[in-house]
Amino acid sequence: MIDALLSDAELRAAVDDVHPSGDDPETIARIAWSVLAEPGDGVAGTLIGELGAAEALRFVFGEPRTLVPPGRESRTLAEGISRWSARADPRSVRRAVTDARDVSARLIVPGDPEWPMALDDLGAHTPVLLWVRGRPSLLRRGPRVAIVGARAASAYGEMVAAELAGDLAASGAVIVSGGAYGIDGAAHRAALAVDGATVAFLAGGVDRAYPQGHQQLLRRIADTGAVVSEVPCGVAPTKWRFLSRNRLIAALGQATVVVEAGWRSGSLNTAGHAASLGRPLGAVPGPVTSAASAGCHRLLREYDARCVTNTAEVRELWESLSPDGETAENVIDAEQVRLLDAIGTRSGVPLVEIARRAGLAPDRVRALLGVLELEGIVEQTAAGWKKKPTRGRRG
Amino acid sequence: MIDALLSDAELRAAVDDVHPSGDDPETIARIAWSVLAEPGDGVAGTLIGELGAAEALRFVFGEPRTLVPPGRESRTLAEGISRWSARADPRSVRRAVTDARDVSARLIVPGDPEWPMALDDLGAHTPVLLWVRGRPSLLRRGPRVAIVGARAASAYGEMVAAELAGDLAASGAVIVSGGAYGIDGAAHRAALAVDGATVAFLAGGVDRAYPQGHQQLLRRIADTGAVVSEVPCGVAPTKWRFLSRNRLIAALGQATVVVEAGWRSGSLNTAGHAASLGRPLGAVPGPVTSAASAGCHRLLREYDARCVTNTAEVRELWESLSPDGETAENVIDAEQVRLLDAIGTRSGVPLVEIARRAGLAPDRVRALLGVLELEGIVEQTAAGWKKKPTRGRRG
Repeated sequence: MIDALLSDAELRAAVDDVHPSGDDPETIARIAWSVLAEPGDGVAGTLIGELGAAEALRFVFGEPRTLVPPGRESRTLAEGISRWSARADPRSVRRAVTDARDVSARLIVPGDPEWPMALDDLGAHTPVLLWVRGRPSLLRRGPRVAIVGARAASAYGEMVAAELAGDLAASGAVIVSGGAYGIDGAAHRAALAVDGATVAFLAGGVDRAYPQGHQQLLRRIADTGAVVSEVPCGVAPTKWRFLSRNRLIAALGQATVVVEAGWRSGSLNTAGHAASLGRPLGAVPGPVTSAASAGCHRLLREYDARCVTNTAEVRELWESLSPDGETAENVIDAEQVRLLDAIGTRSGVPLVEIARRAGLAPDRVRALLGVLELEGIVEQTAAGWKKKPTRGRRG
Repeated sequence: MIDALLSDAELRAAVDDVHPSGDDPETIARIAWSVLAEPGDGVAGTLIGELGAAEALRFVFGEPRTLVPPGRESRTLAEGISRWSARADPRSVRRAVTDARDVSARLIVPGDPEWPMALDDLGAHTPVLLWVRGRPSLLRRGPRVAIVGARAASAYGEMVAAELAGDLAASGAVIVSGGAYGIDGAAHRAALAVDGATVAFLAGGVDRAYPQGHQQLLRRIADTGAVVSEVPCGVAPTKWRFLSRNRLIAALGQATVVVEAGWRSGSLNTAGHAASLGRPLGAVPGPVTSAASAGCHRLLREYDARCVTNTAEVRELWESLSPDGETAENVIDAEQVRLLDAIGTRSGVPLVEIARRAGLAPDRVRALLGVLELEGIVEQTAAGWKKKPTRGRRG
């Protein structure tokens, strides 16, 4: 499949319009993966992490297909292949790019200067790419705070969301949310009202305004902020895609604040992602008589969320972190993870290519590889660096 | 002073009317101490704990006065003596008893069957006695939950307080509070409304309705519950006595719930006592826009209070504890503390007298003394048991 795509002149020209790397096989392969796999497909993520996107595509669709090892992994992989095969149509890949180009969306992939390293904390669930309408640079600017909550918000909740988002945006924070009615909308609007920066993650394609009633709001966000999605243009939001989208909000935010949430609100899913990523989590309390606050109180009780009642208290959530929003330890971990994601066990990868894939400076890559070599995790071959095979590693 | 009091026939007759032990020197000495010392006077508490109430009185007012050891303790003690001397008037002691008798108040002292062992956790700040109008037995009945909060409560706060107190009282819990306007009053009233049990701790004498507007409410509480104070009848509530009273609410409650509290509310003082006593502490959240909830949110943020939004969640606060509301470990600790409080380093105390003072069964005292003797903490003399002097122990 990848070879057919790479020889598709129309596709390569279109990619050139949405991404500076143009016809790089990795970029085209990632676009293909975003068409083939649902958001957060961990099997695809693992495969791409191990082999690189293009090589993973060849592995899956190449003839003769590389032998799949027996056992549990093979079944998971076989299921993945049958899942992905159902969507293996070069026209879909071409359409994903041309539709994006038509709405002036930009593509960013891991390794790009605009790629938000924060998302790499998602490991195998890191998105394969992001489509962005607006300013991709906002995704790396800090501090970034996710302000999310119930669609069925109360006037109280929308007021608090607006106050927090407005104050924080006015002081330079990027407000991250999901573009939904209720709390999300109030947060985005308040950020725009103070000429602040705001990012909306959509569950569907960035060419679709969802919800419809937020068509104008999303256009305004795209004008000065960023409207982002990991799914191709034309793709409709589904329940699964909403849940998957939530992990991106939680991962991009250096802190997540839930303003209002029902007992089973989707915002608790975002909060759960934030907590499992080790991101500080805040919850705004409300009247115990308000169903719209029940989820927030649940977060205080069950998720050990911090009670936040004003902007200063929200700011405290991330102020324990270093200026760029990650502790020094996390930066090292993330860099190692990204470096290891950039190389495989099969064939050696040259240092400059590792640097490009991982989005790290070549000097930094050299230093990290030195450490990893001493630890027996990587080894140098004639072709470049590769991971040392370890017991239990997947083929 | 104690000898003058013991030979006062009118006093002894009056004590007989308020307490079964009648003319027991310890009981009369405790009444004297309650007149001499302000609530929570730790110096008096330590002295009484070391020597017993009557012996402590003799030590302080006897002629010739036992020599005070040099150093810091002596100054603390000298200051205490000058403080207590200012109030050393046998007529005040007599009035404390006759005034209490006139309003049918009952006296309870440590060792009485009704004495709430929970208060012994206050150590040197354990009250020397309690005056009770109503049913002293309620003080030992469990579960007991303290429901407190702002006088300047909102309609929301009073509603929540009433709902929690009503539900809990209906299911058999004793509602402990401070008899004040606002949250306290709402909690007491709700308990009465379901024919439940409720205890009001006053900062002034039990013969005085404070606040005046709660005269009828306090009368109703005394009818079926208990109105309690550690200060003599006739004594007015002061700022200090309010703060001291709060420790009794916190200590008697097996859990404390703050329903509404301003940023500097006295309820935070009660909450602080509960936390330092290791009692579970709950706070009811409210709108972040409500000043009456600011203190509760502070408790959630700074005191690690548990967010409670309904009766079941309040009940969870103490359900981790054993049926009588104290963990087995706490019971042992408290018994040891009380036993050690009942003996001094100076002269031996017979086992039966220790049992009486500590409010423990003689068999239990024998067992505990055996353990403490093995640990080198107590020793047996001809006169009875005494603490072994240790480096740094006060004279």
